[in-house]
Amino acid sequence: MISLDKNKFLIILIAPSGGGKTTIRQAVLAREDDVEYSVSFTTRKPREGEVDGVDYCFISLEEFTERIEQGDFLEHANVHGNLYGTSHSFIKNKMNAGKHVLLDIDVQGAKQILGKGVNAVTIFILPPSESILKKRLNRRGTDTKEVIEHRLKNAASEIDQIRHFDYLVINDKVEDAIKDVICIIRSEEKKIERLENIKDIFYGG
Amino acid sequence: MISLDKNKFLIILIAPSGGGKTTIRQAVLAREDDVEYSVSFTTRKPREGEVDGVDYCFISLEEFTERIEQGDFLEHANVHGNLYGTSHSFIKNKMNAGKHVLLDIDVQGAKQILGKGVNAVTIFILPPSESILKKRLNRRGTDTKEVIEHRLKNAASEIDQIRHFDYLVINDKVEDAIKDVICIIRSEEKKIERLENIKDIFYGG
Repeated sequence: MISLDKNKFLIILIAPSGGGKTTIRQAVLAREDDVEYSVSFTTRKPREGEVDGVDYCFISLEEFTERIEQGDFLEHANVHGNLYGTSHSFIKNKMNAGKHVLLDIDVQGAKQILGKGVNAVTIFILPPSESILKKRLNRRGTDTKEVIEHRLKNAASEIDQIRHFDYLVINDKVEDAIKDVICIIRSEEKKIERLENIKDIFYGG
Repeated sequence: MISLDKNKFLIILIAPSGGGKTTIRQAVLAREDDVEYSVSFTTRKPREGEVDGVDYCFISLEEFTERIEQGDFLEHANVHGNLYGTSHSFIKNKMNAGKHVLLDIDVQGAKQILGKGVNAVTIFILPPSESILKKRLNRRGTDTKEVIEHRLKNAASEIDQIRHFDYLVINDKVEDAIKDVICIIRSEEKKIERLENIKDIFYGG
């Protein structure tokens, strides 16, 4: 029997702030048993209720530095004095266990990862128009007018770099966008270039 | 609003005899409004019940030869003295009308089409194993033992050429295979490389 189980890859969701990538990521992880989350490593202290290995992998500055030296981070960044990184060994372990790995990240982080030559499927998520993005940022009610203006400017420069990525999912209705992402994953795992020994398996089955 | 309407392409289903490509093709065409069939052109006379433009486009040998000279056929073949061909202008007209075009063909025909540099998505359909393919050919009851042996040999040489194509869909349960093909179409139309003016549209919306 031909099985696609060994054909696992990294799925990167990229979206401007307000694009809806967190909601989509959570829904895909909840629905698809063979997709797992790439938990970020950080030197930040856990906040109330955060679980090590679930929300983040909380590590010391020493361990973080060691992992940088070993080349384990596909990307890392300093945010307000805390370090955050995406661990290659973490992702490889999940893949070896037969899982796709899902990651949501900004454009810069995604470009860093692609620069490492990782086998990744990149999905850019975008609301249908700027006016809808603006409406959603306003409706969230978490940002000041200035922050929203800043986010819209960032969105423009992120969209400028969309050609680096594979797929565009329009987040008009979130349920459709979730299904689109799942469909892209299911479609990508059927790519012949990813499959090995098709003939052996066909005749061995 | 970003629309994917202009992003139409040719979808080629390829399968060994008994692979189930006719059933899958018919189901996809019945379910998806924006996918149309690439009707073959032939010099063969219509059989009882066959409708011109639906089952085939029935044309004279003169017209067929003229179309060959004009380079209109993406592929053509002589089968038992009758000519059959896939018309580029037919497909382009459908695409200009906002439709994907679906075609089912053998490996040789698919390779001829790809050689013309057409923007096509190629999907190879295969039963899960040779023993299942054999069972299905026997169950059909339309072929002699010798013909079945011949078909199985052909299948082997077709599978040898699978690397020329984009996707592999395993036809274990036909309903799943139909959904897989539809999912590949929906996923392919989200490829950023196919999309134009994303930014203009986002800001124009």
